[in-house]
Amino acid sequence: MPQTSVILRVELDHRLVSFGDVAATISRAGGDITSIDVIRPGKESSVRDITVDVADTGEAAIVESLAQTEGIRLVNVSDRTFLVHLGGKIEVQPKQKIKNRDDLSLVYTPGVAKICSAIHENAKKAYSLTIKRNTVAVISDGTAVLGLGDIGPYAAAPVMEGKAMLFKQLADVDAFPLCLDTKDTEEIIRTIKAISPIFGGINLEDISSPRCFEIETRLAEELDIPVFHDDQHGTAIVVTAGLLNALKVAGKRIDHVRVVVNGIGAAGVSICKMLLAAGVTRLVPVDREGAIVRGGQYAHPMWQWLADRPEVEEREGTLRDVLAGADVFIGVSKGNLLDEADVERMNANAIVFAMANPVPEIAPEAALPHVKVYATGRSDYPNQINNVLAFPGIFRGVLDCRAARINEPMKLAAARAIASVVSEAELNEQYIIPSIFNEQVVQKVRHAVVETAILTGTARRIPPDFR
Amino acid sequence: MPQTSVILRVELDHRLVSFGDVAATISRAGGDITSIDVIRPGKESSVRDITVDVADTGEAAIVESLAQTEGIRLVNVSDRTFLVHLGGKIEVQPKQKIKNRDDLSLVYTPGVAKICSAIHENAKKAYSLTIKRNTVAVISDGTAVLGLGDIGPYAAAPVMEGKAMLFKQLADVDAFPLCLDTKDTEEIIRTIKAISPIFGGINLEDISSPRCFEIETRLAEELDIPVFHDDQHGTAIVVTAGLLNALKVAGKRIDHVRVVVNGIGAAGVSICKMLLAAGVTRLVPVDREGAIVRGGQYAHPMWQWLADRPEVEEREGTLRDVLAGADVFIGVSKGNLLDEADVERMNANAIVFAMANPVPEIAPEAALPHVKVYATGRSDYPNQINNVLAFPGIFRGVLDCRAARINEPMKLAAARAIASVVSEAELNEQYIIPSIFNEQVVQKVRHAVVETAILTGTARRIPPDFR
Repeated sequence: MPQTSVILRVELDHRLVSFGDVAATISRAGGDITSIDVIRPGKESSVRDITVDVADTGEAAIVESLAQTEGIRLVNVSDRTFLVHLGGKIEVQPKQKIKNRDDLSLVYTPGVAKICSAIHENAKKAYSLTIKRNTVAVISDGTAVLGLGDIGPYAAAPVMEGKAMLFKQLADVDAFPLCLDTKDTEEIIRTIKAISPIFGGINLEDISSPRCFEIETRLAEELDIPVFHDDQHGTAIVVTAGLLNALKVAGKRIDHVRVVVNGIGAAGVSICKMLLAAGVTRLVPVDREGAIVRGGQYAHPMWQWLADRPEVEEREGTLRDVLAGADVFIGVSKGNLLDEADVERMNANAIVFAMANPVPEIAPEAALPHVKVYATGRSDYPNQINNVLAFPGIFRGVLDCRAARINEPMKLAAARAIASVVSEAELNEQYIIPSIFNEQVVQKVRHAVVETAILTGTARRIPPDFR
Repeated sequence: MPQTSVILRVELDHRLVSFGDVAATISRAGGDITSIDVIRPGKESSVRDITVDVADTGEAAIVESLAQTEGIRLVNVSDRTFLVHLGGKIEVQPKQKIKNRDDLSLVYTPGVAKICSAIHENAKKAYSLTIKRNTVAVISDGTAVLGLGDIGPYAAAPVMEGKAMLFKQLADVDAFPLCLDTKDTEEIIRTIKAISPIFGGINLEDISSPRCFEIETRLAEELDIPVFHDDQHGTAIVVTAGLLNALKVAGKRIDHVRVVVNGIGAAGVSICKMLLAAGVTRLVPVDREGAIVRGGQYAHPMWQWLADRPEVEEREGTLRDVLAGADVFIGVSKGNLLDEADVERMNANAIVFAMANPVPEIAPEAALPHVKVYATGRSDYPNQINNVLAFPGIFRGVLDCRAARINEPMKLAAARAIASVVSEAELNEQYIIPSIFNEQVVQKVRHAVVETAILTGTARRIPPDFR
């Protein structure tokens, strides 16, 4: 059973209880005491921090037992998740220490003036003489954070900080989080353009649909550094990687299968686009009002774009209707939309990616008897479709070759690179996608991105290992 | 003689020269070879990096000698200042390593959702659960960088990075540089407001006058975190600190002396304000058109503010005119404005702060025979008036007590704290201001700032050492 570690700060009234009573109460409620720190000793009362291992679901029982015991005051309950977030998760470090006046005169006035002048004469030198060549902004307006929705810029920060950690640890990219106190599309575009000079790339994050399309498109056009909305393209890239391998396991060809994509928002649009680029010829995009059909008229410009594609089916119907006879279901929608009977009506050796968070469109227990490959966004099942497989290597690649943009061929190359990390020998129903801790992932994605940037003419520098 | 270290990358055509020829050429031109790295060996030609110690002024002679020798191609010349800037001077580091899936689930999805929700419920928790409580933005539009002027956001970056290094090393403040691609006052205000949520304070830097006044004032009013234009207030604080000690050395009282401040731009205005707050009763602000006089009419709102002060003199005149009979000259203007005769006409035991950069208003050789205390902005003379004495401790203080603003009493307290680091016993004409490497400076400034923030009601948290 998953365990969590909780730290309880308790104040004891020594006239009423002893520490033995506290320990017994915690044990009876299912907790396992692993350490004790006396915070304030005292004769009449004392304060201690008690670290307790407990089942994920058992914390409430302990808290309740303590609260009901006379003489015990529960001052605070901290769990490990809160503790690792205290004071934030990243810091800004000098690359070298200023030891004396001589060092100071190199990195600051008067020496730095020479560097400023060199960049003033040739702005391209910003790439060699400032942090630009290795630095990415992780920017959100806090409107579509995880499954939580529009929680605002302050509450979005922990996700952006977590992303900055992953950027550095996995790909040695320096990433700084910026959370915007505006939801206005034009204001967001203006702000990001204004702060862009110090950055070598922009990772947009958790911006709600449909504003995310306009914001990303405009910034990509108006800036000369790459712009990437991870919720759209990161997801699409990893889905495509997983699907390429799942098709091998299922013995099906990408240009033959019938693919249903449910939830045509930020991620769904990007998934549809990438699947078409990857060779899908029979696509059924579905949103709340049913299938988006070829030749239909839609207010949403991205839906209309899909309706104009020859690969999109003409047949109308609900999700249930169109899922019958499909080879692949990709859900980026919401939990518990499908039942066993629905997936049973899919073709033999079906593939189901049920990526709604935290509850998938159909639980693995219900799906697995009827499908060949099942994947989710969750870490506690096999085949986790996780964006962390894509963004570190993609930005490592674009920074190394100073790509001006991240084009469709580069994204597809990244997907194929992720898929390639799982060898033919390793590939099976339970293992279609590598672990995010697999060190090959970043290297292979980077290589594919740089190679494709060079081939498509968007690289502005050839890294040494490509010369 | 000051030495510099230069790295020469040379390509040798072996049919025409040997390495011995290269070494001899460098020696004859005054260089001392300290190391050699072969970058590309080869039979017909080779490339080497040659590190050479040379007098600060001797680099050109070596470069010319090598360029004139047939068979030697000088590929590149790097000096140490350029080398320490390669790839920039700061990086963004995770505070802890993500070692496994369990760690990841704490700092990123799914665990992080709990933290986001906690902040969403209570935005104040951003101070405990994100980097906000220790993070400052160093923001410039690149319009008034060092003595270089309007060199733009790309060229300004090395100064902002240097500042971020100093923030971390001296005061453990995480500072991130942002260089703005706009010079429009309203656009700058909007942009900084939009990106403010992740930061606990804003250090404005190198923004030209008069826009800097409006930008700082508006941001201070409209944001709930402290905003500080270092070029104005950092300079004013350190000048005031130096003046307090210089007056002791000269045996004069602040409420008796007649003070001429020359150059009423960003720094000059702030210096005048702070001197008045510190107790100066006879002030003569001077700009290009001569003294700003009490009762005069001026277009520049800050000049008018000065003209309305009872402490400002009514007497008109040029800088030369008004300097006669002054006790104190503070120059934040331009080089070589004054000669020996000018300072000779000041009162006995005069104090001269000649802070124009890089050339002071009057050279020390010319001033020293006639004045008691002489100070500059330069590191190669005694009594360096350096902003680095102020900003690290000020931001350490405001972050620790979550001050909503940096008010005038806090600035004056910082100045008095800096002055107090030099004890009565140590104080002399050559030592009125502490070294930036003196570890007492940050601690004393922080203490004074927190104390005054509490007293003036702008602190939103009492740090443990003040409880």
